[in-house]
Amino acid sequence: MPPVLYLIPNILSDNTFERVLPQHVLSVTGKIRHFFVEDVRTARRFLSKIQHPVPIDRLHFCELSEHTSEGDVASFLPYLQAEDSGMISEAGVPGVADPGAALVKLAHDNGIRVAPLAGPSSVLMALMASGLNGQSFAFNGYLPVKQNERIARIRALEHRSENEGQTQIFIETPYRNMKLLEDIVTTCKPETYLCIAANITADDEYIVTQAVRKWKNRLPELHKIPAVFLLQAPHASAKNQRR
Amino acid sequence: MPPVLYLIPNILSDNTFERVLPQHVLSVTGKIRHFFVEDVRTARRFLSKIQHPVPIDRLHFCELSEHTSEGDVASFLPYLQAEDSGMISEAGVPGVADPGAALVKLAHDNGIRVAPLAGPSSVLMALMASGLNGQSFAFNGYLPVKQNERIARIRALEHRSENEGQTQIFIETPYRNMKLLEDIVTTCKPETYLCIAANITADDEYIVTQAVRKWKNRLPELHKIPAVFLLQAPHASAKNQRR
Repeated sequence: MPPVLYLIPNILSDNTFERVLPQHVLSVTGKIRHFFVEDVRTARRFLSKIQHPVPIDRLHFCELSEHTSEGDVASFLPYLQAEDSGMISEAGVPGVADPGAALVKLAHDNGIRVAPLAGPSSVLMALMASGLNGQSFAFNGYLPVKQNERIARIRALEHRSENEGQTQIFIETPYRNMKLLEDIVTTCKPETYLCIAANITADDEYIVTQAVRKWKNRLPELHKIPAVFLLQAPHASAKNQRR
Repeated sequence: MPPVLYLIPNILSDNTFERVLPQHVLSVTGKIRHFFVEDVRTARRFLSKIQHPVPIDRLHFCELSEHTSEGDVASFLPYLQAEDSGMISEAGVPGVADPGAALVKLAHDNGIRVAPLAGPSSVLMALMASGLNGQSFAFNGYLPVKQNERIARIRALEHRSENEGQTQIFIETPYRNMKLLEDIVTTCKPETYLCIAANITADDEYIVTQAVRKWKNRLPELHKIPAVFLLQAPHASAKNQRR
């Protein structure tokens, strides 16, 4: 059988393996001995938690993070070609909101089959649970760090949502969540909807959607808490439905 | 305990329950007696397949399809308030690429907690496995049916991908797949990448990404086969990385 690159979902929140991973993910992963991972230490912990049948020291790892150069990614090809391999993200599914796409691209360019496995994605689960438009949406990754650029970006996203009815999704480094939220509530129109989705799949999961005017002065404390943010501007969905 | 609206993922392909659904989804669903569904017949089949412990005739269903009016959605509120309920899509996760968001919005507007459950999404799994930019992407639903409008839309999506480095994702009614593909390969630049992802999670899953020039005259036969299409224009990702 020609080798396959499996895309292995990781949990989003501690001790939620049975809650979010199909049994199939565990059994496929248990047959793989070569892994592409963002961080070897956390990947080892994941494999040990799911009781990988091979001793962790006998598994092989290539690190693929945001610091990995294009050339280094290309050097992974022999591993893809040798036998079935798996890519694991730090959290959620590989290839979405992480640097994993470069390896998947390498696989396609070399005719290696890629098989995605079903699992949790904070971006997708936030969208599902937001009640905002799920028939047209965009994920924008991180917004700029500089405040004036960040505010300009928030305005541009709100504008696009208003014109196109497209839900705008983004994330932030968790210790900057509160700054981002303050900028959203001071920048956006009072009737724009903001969904805050934090600690997705955890026992203290928090997912609330309401108009920006209702969030003002009543923001939840999200310092250092993993969260996803979603915006939909007023009238956008109505426009969309009229098409 | 206040009632919760659970968002229940459905399979994408026949007989793949164990492959794509966590055990948790089955146990949560087994405790729910009120369901919001796109089609009662297929929902009953799903619940019978996962061996819902309550006889199917004693479960209660509200239909929520693209034909359901806003007023009819609003009339579902008493069911959301009465006890835990679940929403099931025809395929994949509810609230994404289906009309389910309206009910989720109703839940938020009335302070009812919404809990998304992890499962398969063809849009997300296609993106993971495409190797295209997963740090900035947009899902655009269906493209226009009229050919001149469809071609204009394909051009606009390619242009946006080129300018913003954003992967553009879309779907088509399966019996129109080949017309859409013909329009893509004749409209897009030869170096634009096109990923075709069909029969995701099935044994004959087909996910291939290559330049449009390589697809020309070599399109796979996808008539009536569920598929997701993804575009990324040349230089877009390079531009993105230079930021």
